[in-house]
Amino acid sequence: MPRIDGRAYDALRPIEIIPNVNRFAEGSCLIRCGSTHVLCTASVEERTPPHVPEGEGWVTAEYSMLPRANRERSKRDIAKLKLSPRSAEIQRLVGRALRAAVDMRKLGARTITVDCDVLQGDGGTRTASVTGGFVALSYALHKLVSEGVLPEMPLKTCVAAVSAGIVDDQPMLDLCYEEDSSAQVDLNCVMTGEGELVELQGTGEGRAFTIEEQRVLVDLCAKGIREVQAIQRQALGG
Amino acid sequence: MPRIDGRAYDALRPIEIIPNVNRFAEGSCLIRCGSTHVLCTASVEERTPPHVPEGEGWVTAEYSMLPRANRERSKRDIAKLKLSPRSAEIQRLVGRALRAAVDMRKLGARTITVDCDVLQGDGGTRTASVTGGFVALSYALHKLVSEGVLPEMPLKTCVAAVSAGIVDDQPMLDLCYEEDSSAQVDLNCVMTGEGELVELQGTGEGRAFTIEEQRVLVDLCAKGIREVQAIQRQALGG
Amino acid sequence: MPRIDGRAYDALRPIEIIPNVNRFAEGSCLIRCGSTHVLCTASVEERTPPHVPEGEGWVTAEYSMLPRANRERSKRDIAKLKLSPRSAEIQRLVGRALRAAVDMRKLGARTITVDCDVLQGDGGTRTASVTGGFVALSYALHKLVSEGVLPEMPLKTCVAAVSAGIVDDQPMLDLCYEEDSSAQVDLNCVMTGEGELVELQGTGEGRAFTIEEQRVLVDLCAKGIREVQAIQRQALGG
Amino acid sequence: MPRIDGRAYDALRPIEIIPNVNRFAEGSCLIRCGSTHVLCTASVEERTPPHVPEGEGWVTAEYSMLPRANRERSKRDIAKLKLSPRSAEIQRLVGRALRAAVDMRKLGARTITVDCDVLQGDGGTRTASVTGGFVALSYALHKLVSEGVLPEMPLKTCVAAVSAGIVDDQPMLDLCYEEDSSAQVDLNCVMTGEGELVELQGTGEGRAFTIEEQRVLVDLCAKGIREVQAIQRQALGG
Amino acid sequence: MPRIDGRAYDALRPIEIIPNVNRFAEGSCLIRCGSTHVLCTASVEERTPPHVPEGEGWVTAEYSMLPRANRERSKRDIAKLKLSPRSAEIQRLVGRALRAAVDMRKLGARTITVDCDVLQGDGGTRTASVTGGFVALSYALHKLVSEGVLPEMPLKTCVAAVSAGIVDDQPMLDLCYEEDSSAQVDLNCVMTGEGELVELQGTGEGRAFTIEEQRVLVDLCAKGIREVQAIQRQALGG
Amino acid sequence: MPRIDGRAYDALRPIEIIPNVNRFAEGSCLIRCGSTHVLCTASVEERTPPHVPEGEGWVTAEYSMLPRANRERSKRDIAKLKLSPRSAEIQRLVGRALRAAVDMRKLGARTITVDCDVLQGDGGTRTASVTGGFVALSYALHKLVSEGVLPEMPLKTCVAAVSAGIVDDQPMLDLCYEEDSSAQVDLNCVMTGEGELVELQGTGEGRAFTIEEQRVLVDLCAKGIREVQAIQRQALGG
Repeated sequence: MPRIDGRAYDALRPIEIIPNVNRFAEGSCLIRCGSTHVLCTASVEERTPPHVPEGEGWVTAEYSMLPRANRERSKRDIAKLKLSPRSAEIQRLVGRALRAAVDMRKLGARTITVDCDVLQGDGGTRTASVTGGFVALSYALHKLVSEGVLPEMPLKTCVAAVSAGIVDDQPMLDLCYEEDSSAQVDLNCVMTGEGELVELQGTGEGRAFTIEEQRVLVDLCAKGIREVQAIQRQALGG
Repeated sequence: MPRIDGRAYDALRPIEIIPNVNRFAEGSCLIRCGSTHVLCTASVEERTPPHVPEGEGWVTAEYSMLPRANRERSKRDIAKLKLSPRSAEIQRLVGRALRAAVDMRKLGARTITVDCDVLQGDGGTRTASVTGGFVALSYALHKLVSEGVLPEMPLKTCVAAVSAGIVDDQPMLDLCYEEDSSAQVDLNCVMTGEGELVELQGTGEGRAFTIEEQRVLVDLCAKGIREVQAIQRQALGG
Repeated sequence: MPRIDGRAYDALRPIEIIPNVNRFAEGSCLIRCGSTHVLCTASVEERTPPHVPEGEGWVTAEYSMLPRANRERSKRDIAKLKLSPRSAEIQRLVGRALRAAVDMRKLGARTITVDCDVLQGDGGTRTASVTGGFVALSYALHKLVSEGVLPEMPLKTCVAAVSAGIVDDQPMLDLCYEEDSSAQVDLNCVMTGEGELVELQGTGEGRAFTIEEQRVLVDLCAKGIREVQAIQRQALGG
Repeated sequence: MPRIDGRAYDALRPIEIIPNVNRFAEGSCLIRCGSTHVLCTASVEERTPPHVPEGEGWVTAEYSMLPRANRERSKRDIAKLKLSPRSAEIQRLVGRALRAAVDMRKLGARTITVDCDVLQGDGGTRTASVTGGFVALSYALHKLVSEGVLPEMPLKTCVAAVSAGIVDDQPMLDLCYEEDSSAQVDLNCVMTGEGELVELQGTGEGRAFTIEEQRVLVDLCAKGIREVQAIQRQALGG
Repeated sequence: MPRIDGRAYDALRPIEIIPNVNRFAEGSCLIRCGSTHVLCTASVEERTPPHVPEGEGWVTAEYSMLPRANRERSKRDIAKLKLSPRSAEIQRLVGRALRAAVDMRKLGARTITVDCDVLQGDGGTRTASVTGGFVALSYALHKLVSEGVLPEMPLKTCVAAVSAGIVDDQPMLDLCYEEDSSAQVDLNCVMTGEGELVELQGTGEGRAFTIEEQRVLVDLCAKGIREVQAIQRQALGG
Repeated sequence: MPRIDGRAYDALRPIEIIPNVNRFAEGSCLIRCGSTHVLCTASVEERTPPHVPEGEGWVTAEYSMLPRANRERSKRDIAKLKLSPRSAEIQRLVGRALRAAVDMRKLGARTITVDCDVLQGDGGTRTASVTGGFVALSYALHKLVSEGVLPEMPLKTCVAAVSAGIVDDQPMLDLCYEEDSSAQVDLNCVMTGEGELVELQGTGEGRAFTIEEQRVLVDLCAKGIREVQAIQRQALGG
């Protein structure tokens, strides 16, 4: 049974990273993974939240969907006076993932906020946010280096993310919305440039899954992430 | 004294309307007025709020800025648990302006919500929202007509908007952010295709202004809106 | 066709300004414009918000309706956990209008908050708030001068406001609620003692309006505001 | 040692009840107890909350202070996004007190909301709210009877309230703000026309108090309430 | 007519105070009054709110019900975005009661927050909170003394609370939920170790009550509180 | 290097499940995993949220920490007017985990809400909530069966959870708070009675981790969950 868009089971959707789409942000990009479009901006502020050790930096992320990013219009968070719990969960994930790449001592006492706003969502918005968010963050760090604010790039590694899932008992890479909504199992990985894991989240939505199935999905993600990282490197001029 | 970007006093910034940028919304466009970029989507729902007479339709608007739309990052509304009063004021204006163009009886018992999300702001976001919002709304109505949901376009007229102001005692059209922040007077008009006013808001920010000055600014706006409407008509294929 | 209350088209409703109705506020008045009653208090605090240049002052306004100010009881803002968008819009207008009259350097590093609470509303609450708010503000400034806190009145001009509208294609001054709810066009002006504009807001609620009609309405407002300012002067003992 | 305003220990401040101050509310009054001024409106709605037995009515109260009702301006509840806990406590008290006077079966399936808005506060705002609230409620019920909506007044009794306290070990009636802020003990009573208790709240603010002292304070309140009820009866034309 | 659980009219339910149930809090206990179970923790922080005179301490309380503390599950406050008005009222009472026992100068510039979380509620949760809250507070103060932070216990007295009510015209002590929900009158007392009143709240829920009935209820409470204080002393090792 | 509490690397802390601690909830237990104490109640309501297919049931979870569950007192959610993002994330996890065990068609059109309130937290509160929540849920389902509301237990499997982590490069099972706060990697698993995965979340907090390390952690969790399930079965009488 072929996939809904004719892809091979281990194939990503086309990914496009358009750099510097925002003239004010220190770093920004628009990432398109198939029909999923996320606008990522990185904003630098010369102060840190109270919990950060003195002299060190901080990286945080916010995630939101525009009201008509999806098939149905959804109400804005402010109309319901609460942050969508799904957004809360995702922005915690994106923040942790990005922090894993940064040397906070080298960043110095400043905060970088990476805003990931989903203009259009077709599955995989959280992984696109990690991948695009890292690019926006890197642009901002490059700017700080090129302006002499930082002596060197405060990055320990790069991070990128992708999802895999099981649909009709078939493991497949990078689910689009239609696949995702009928998936039995959904699993996301964030990995470093060295192929190590930073975040791993798997959910049996339709059924439980074996440890063996979990391994297959992680391996699929690892393959996908290598391809994503090649595109990231290109966007980052390396 | 020339303008900051070399424009004539009665010249608009370049306007670009990119249609159908969102695959889910019934109508959408990205409007760019110089460096001001607003994503407009029109969403149709088959129900109306309680205050609407039975059998009639409703059009409403929401307006928001992405956190890094501006020179400084601003907090999201949800982080402050309140809709920005400026956004509240603007979305009321956009909603009234769009309703002025629609025959609610012909629209029938459905609501169209026009979301205007400012991706990048450089002055004139509220007028760009009216102009782009009308285009998105029209696309959505065309879709309803082409699908046979509506027998004819429920439009009474078209609406577009532009701002003018007085900077260093010089009236000028379509202020960009830098001009706007040093403007003595700021005035916005929404007009119909027939050149009549739908909304008019003028504010003396640095000083009061005479009735004569007010007339000059309205005339400048009228000239600008005629040009904007030509671009709107092009986008709407007419 | 006569007006609902027998007034001439260019006649104001009776206006009454009762001074010093609150024994704690530095300045206060109750303004009655026909059946519209607004309690205005001006409160002085010896600090300013962060955005104000050092050594300068600030004037701000808050506007609210008591729950039974109108024909139907409405819920309090706190019961809905959001400031009414209409109130947000109006208090921004009142604040801008009052600031236009004050020399912030002469005011010095203090904030005056003008609270406009509508006890009973019958149309024209926003313009009554500007007119009464200016009186309360002036009383508070007088007190600061008489106590020697300020060497001179930090006023550049006075401000007052009135509305006009078009009902059944007839322009008329100072609409009461019943006229307002069937008005085709509604326009508010705030003007200085010199007859210059500070704020101008016009809305075509039932239909669009020509530039010529707009001019007629502004002229009507100018006439009305001159009369309002005579009453203001009387209240201010000048 | 005489009282701050020369009153006898068992004397009330002058009380004035101005009827029908709001032209829209079904019942209203402005009650003045010395410098404490509370605007009370009673609004009738032809529906009841879910917890009310079918066919029966409901009476509820809301209490709020205008921002400058007191010596210092306080922020509005909506600015803090929470109902003041003190207001929450008081409006529960006022609601219970008013319900004690009403026969809910005779009221029928309607809700009366009594809004008590403190225009100026000088101690005793909660007891003035009960006393004035009952008058506004009675006016609204009279209106329902006179319009034939109700066959008879659905009142079981009348209610009024007053406070007493101990200042410098001296029991005294009806504390004003200055007395209240140095009171050792503060006690409020709500009583029926028959002199029975409906609500009783006593607090040792500066020190504990004996059961005997408590009895003295309740007796003082009983005396005061009889006088308040005479003024209430006058306002109610009986 | 015997009571629902066979108790004498002037008998308390069995009370149990389990000390130190939380290993992190400076003081804690679980108090069980019949089927009413309240977890009380006292937390010490080395700072005080702005309104507290320099060098003095502060004691405050928070009260909350777990969602299934009662017969029906109730929504959490956060789901409704507002503190339950009943909780607001109760935590103000508990805070006042506990402060009455403490010498704030001897406590020094620190705050003790007593959290009273109702795990299971069967009537009398507010009085159990006062009684258990005082025990948790005392443990925390003992700890401060034993650690040498304080030279002596900063207590002026002890406080405990109990309720009484009138059911079927019969006064009775310490109502359980079923009695409470059919009570005509409900009255709570907080008293010191010397038998003086600190708080007194009485409500005629089904009918008004005479001053004589009120005295009987206060006497019943006084008897009950003496017994509660014996159990408190035992828990406090004295 | 031994563990902080002397446990073997693959040893759980002592687990205790105290059944039926709440007399009102349809099912409840207190689960103690070392010093982590979570009160779990399952509440049945005879209605379902709108997104549930007709005739099917729903299971949802809420998670919260009492203010002094931890070393430092934290503010209540309601004081900050927002659900803690961490709680939002955890309660979504617990809800998904419990739903994985239930046959929603057999449950019928009712909702079971499982409240997990952390009385004391020492690491592993989310996994204790899943394990204890499943027990409370099962008790509630047993009650529905024993009362004849349901013909048979609507369970497809059982679920339990445990965490593992890497501390000082040493993988270990069931981290307590002190281990957790210095852990390099933290991973949680929810598994069924058949040893299949339902949820898997791994985070590299101090460093990234290899796929091989991830496998070791999952295997550790699998071992631990088998032991937890034995204790669950005992609590469930089978």
